[in-house]
Amino acid sequence: MTVLVFLDPAFFDGRIVDAHVPAIMATDQGVTRGDGIFESLLAVNGVPRKLQAHLDRLAGSARSMQLTLPDADIWKRAIATALTTFVAASPQAPDEHGNTSVLIKLICTRGPEGEETPTAWVAASAVSPVLAAQREKGLDVLLLDRGYESTISSRAPWLLLGAKTLSYAVNMAALRHAHANGGDDVIFISGDGQVLEGPTSSVLLAHVSNDGGKTLKRLITPSLDNGILPGTTQGALFAAAKDAGWELGYGPLEPRDLFDADAVWLISSIRLLAPVNTIDGVEIGTADVRAALTSELSALLAQTH
Amino acid sequence: MTVLVFLDPAFFDGRIVDAHVPAIMATDQGVTRGDGIFESLLAVNGVPRKLQAHLDRLAGSARSMQLTLPDADIWKRAIATALTTFVAASPQAPDEHGNTSVLIKLICTRGPEGEETPTAWVAASAVSPVLAAQREKGLDVLLLDRGYESTISSRAPWLLLGAKTLSYAVNMAALRHAHANGGDDVIFISGDGQVLEGPTSSVLLAHVSNDGGKTLKRLITPSLDNGILPGTTQGALFAAAKDAGWELGYGPLEPRDLFDADAVWLISSIRLLAPVNTIDGVEIGTADVRAALTSELSALLAQTH
Repeated sequence: MTVLVFLDPAFFDGRIVDAHVPAIMATDQGVTRGDGIFESLLAVNGVPRKLQAHLDRLAGSARSMQLTLPDADIWKRAIATALTTFVAASPQAPDEHGNTSVLIKLICTRGPEGEETPTAWVAASAVSPVLAAQREKGLDVLLLDRGYESTISSRAPWLLLGAKTLSYAVNMAALRHAHANGGDDVIFISGDGQVLEGPTSSVLLAHVSNDGGKTLKRLITPSLDNGILPGTTQGALFAAAKDAGWELGYGPLEPRDLFDADAVWLISSIRLLAPVNTIDGVEIGTADVRAALTSELSALLAQTH
Repeated sequence: MTVLVFLDPAFFDGRIVDAHVPAIMATDQGVTRGDGIFESLLAVNGVPRKLQAHLDRLAGSARSMQLTLPDADIWKRAIATALTTFVAASPQAPDEHGNTSVLIKLICTRGPEGEETPTAWVAASAVSPVLAAQREKGLDVLLLDRGYESTISSRAPWLLLGAKTLSYAVNMAALRHAHANGGDDVIFISGDGQVLEGPTSSVLLAHVSNDGGKTLKRLITPSLDNGILPGTTQGALFAAAKDAGWELGYGPLEPRDLFDADAVWLISSIRLLAPVNTIDGVEIGTADVRAALTSELSALLAQTH
């Protein structure tokens, strides 16, 4: 089931809408042109994770799109309404750590054509069990060309790179292409050969080495200069890993950096840290090292908020 | 006003829906991911123009997206219902040639998340008077980088180039960028410097020369190899121009070909043939030649169906 809460000035805590009936105008520019923005976040035991980071990124996407966005407080109240309503109607079973999770989506469109009123809502729903299975089993990933040069973002702001827009048809087509070719997911490569991101995730890699008996652990992600989306979960994990003694690094990265890594992950707010078993059919590191590093970093990530 | 007619197996001629009430589920993938396709076409005096070409292109977009599309006959009946309902409710004033026009949009999304049923509808509405004014006055256009190489389309089908998807956020952002910088519209250039298309139109240019007293007229459009959308109106005009003695040519074209042309147009199904007065502030040809060629080609276009 899904609980919908629309942001509506007439309803202080948001307007709850039956998810079984249509709620969006057919002329809404979110429908007719994918002209809007969104965020997906996880609420654990009733508490949204990294809420401020998601609201900040939503505000950044709105600026890129010149979209009027309701204030953060209005979003927070609607999120609270959605969460409590969803949990009351559909109590979630705890996972192996005793935690319950709910998927929260924030959506804001440019509103119906001819009106200048954005349409904004929060949707609460269950987390797909497929995601936990992917965390557990790992992913087979294909490298796909994203078509853009890694340098395009700053000189072509109309391409909206770094904004999380509703225009996700290419991201979905890339995932379908992967599924049709034996893959679970995708890592996009720029036209000039740099590692970018997944269609719905950030890319991480780890290098572990020994320096005179001391273990050096390095966690690396592509640089944002590439025009990729700043990953809220990648950011939270980096902060936790730094505190735990990991060195941090930022791209540019090339595909060979992925193949040379001890482990590669796709990381995102809902699926969290999913290890990459193979890229284009080539195993990354070894199963033992992948499992050990995934376990270590997942524990760090679980401590973040 | 807008008339909405949903394609619904329970309604042979389509299901008329009040456009003032929400008609789309908030979980529809057309909303949440821009995951769907569309066509815009003009009905003149109650007859949809180039209907088969639009239905064919819609079917091509559906194939690129692996989207299930209702049969053409179902679309045709829903279009007829939308047209007659709209004209009865909102008779349109005839233009200077005594013709009445109605804008028809065909939309098909992947449907609500978790269901495999596409959402499909026809919307009939009035044509914006801005478009006739742009045909009359002409356009100031900016060249903007589309970010893709001209060769990417065939080797990266997941980029959905050549499909008319609902993920139009970049097209809309490019138009906003133009408006904020003194322009009316945009011509996209590929990363490797080739002329592509407008955000909602095809690009045409004309060369007129004299060869021993005989006037040679040449109409040129970028090649589809670039990954641009095949223009239904460009196609119709090319056929009519050929019959009228014009030579036809297909790109690759570079920006200098636009600046060297006797006239440049943006052409599309609703705005039809709109002359480009300036590109990046530089006048194209002369006002007299632009007006004469626009008049000649508009007359040819008016005879097409």
